[in-house]
Amino acid sequence: MNPPLVTGYDWSPDRGLGLVRDIRVRWALEEVGQPYDMRYLSWGEQKEPAHRARHPFGQVPTYEEDGFVLFESGAIVLHVAQTHPGLLPADGAARARAVEWMFAALNTVEPVVWEHLRAAVFEQGEDWAKARLPSVEAPLRERLKELSARLGDAEWLDGAFSAGDLLMVSVLRYPSCAAMVGAHPNLAAYVARGVARPAFARALAALRTGQTGNPPADWPR
Amino acid sequence: MNPPLVTGYDWSPDRGLGLVRDIRVRWALEEVGQPYDMRYLSWGEQKEPAHRARHPFGQVPTYEEDGFVLFESGAIVLHVAQTHPGLLPADGAARARAVEWMFAALNTVEPVVWEHLRAAVFEQGEDWAKARLPSVEAPLRERLKELSARLGDAEWLDGAFSAGDLLMVSVLRYPSCAAMVGAHPNLAAYVARGVARPAFARALAALRTGQTGNPPADWPR
Repeated sequence: MNPPLVTGYDWSPDRGLGLVRDIRVRWALEEVGQPYDMRYLSWGEQKEPAHRARHPFGQVPTYEEDGFVLFESGAIVLHVAQTHPGLLPADGAARARAVEWMFAALNTVEPVVWEHLRAAVFEQGEDWAKARLPSVEAPLRERLKELSARLGDAEWLDGAFSAGDLLMVSVLRYPSCAAMVGAHPNLAAYVARGVARPAFARALAALRTGQTGNPPADWPR
Repeated sequence: MNPPLVTGYDWSPDRGLGLVRDIRVRWALEEVGQPYDMRYLSWGEQKEPAHRARHPFGQVPTYEEDGFVLFESGAIVLHVAQTHPGLLPADGAARARAVEWMFAALNTVEPVVWEHLRAAVFEQGEDWAKARLPSVEAPLRERLKELSARLGDAEWLDGAFSAGDLLMVSVLRYPSCAAMVGAHPNLAAYVARGVARPAFARALAALRTGQTGNPPADWPR
């Protein structure tokens, strides 16, 4: 059996921060000790037919395992967690709760983080951006407060570190929300604990070493 | 063993359309033939400590099963699908692909549907709403085109109807995106097939019958 093959870009749109979602899959594979190969796409290639066949929305990451192809980082992280020990508890109820935090990260927290990121960063040049910003800051602030209250003094969201924490930390580490996360010392410490894990460090180092391509000529500097 | 207990509101913020996420859990339970009980919350109760203990973000639905508590509709639908036959294929690879569509519905399609819904409906009274609308329509239109291309002539996204279709249809049936979905006849027919399923009809009828409460006094008419 060949090692799994993960798709990512051959350069970093975020200057090596590792915010593109392939980092989540790399991190999961590092956590469970599963070696993997990378297929690097140059920018634009993700929208071409060969990659569309793997990923209907023309994005990264994808995951391949001897002819079995999967897209969507949440689904890939869950697949890795279900087929290797280390990212989900063995007990059924605890396992369902870890999966619950995966969905909470992606469907409850990430959308407000992203909407804020769009408003605060991508749309900041628009005339209407400043007027709109408070209405996207408020829900993000609320969610972070709720998450902080639930986390309390715990190290991770529910028992040992799980795929749920992996995705929640991934969602909270966008620099655009760092100040708002930082308003809750327990949340800031939680994110710091996550990215301090050796598996995350290995994933990020591999990403930086592997991306030897160049940005497209028209990419903003 | 008691039947599972699902939490929803005791009235319908969307006038009986069944767009609040408890419909997804009801639909899944109807698909697998699992009877369930409802706990109805009056508006505001979802933010009080008793419910916060069940759901850290103070939302519905939640799901309880003899002391085991789960929140986040995607996680609940997956739990129901994993513990009952009918919503996931038996084969491991096909099962992972059905789960992939669950995540695609919630993390790739729903965020753009919601951002458009916010812009087109909730924020339409704001000065800046009209100027911003094209920038949220474009990504939604793109995702729908991609989804339509992948669906093609198929009845469901990957083989038989699955939890992935249940969530994708749920995400595409917001009235705010009906016109854009309708631009792709195969997608419109896909959504129509989904809501024509007897299990969906039973879930919606039960929701309408069960919601006997009143909106809060300050709710916009």
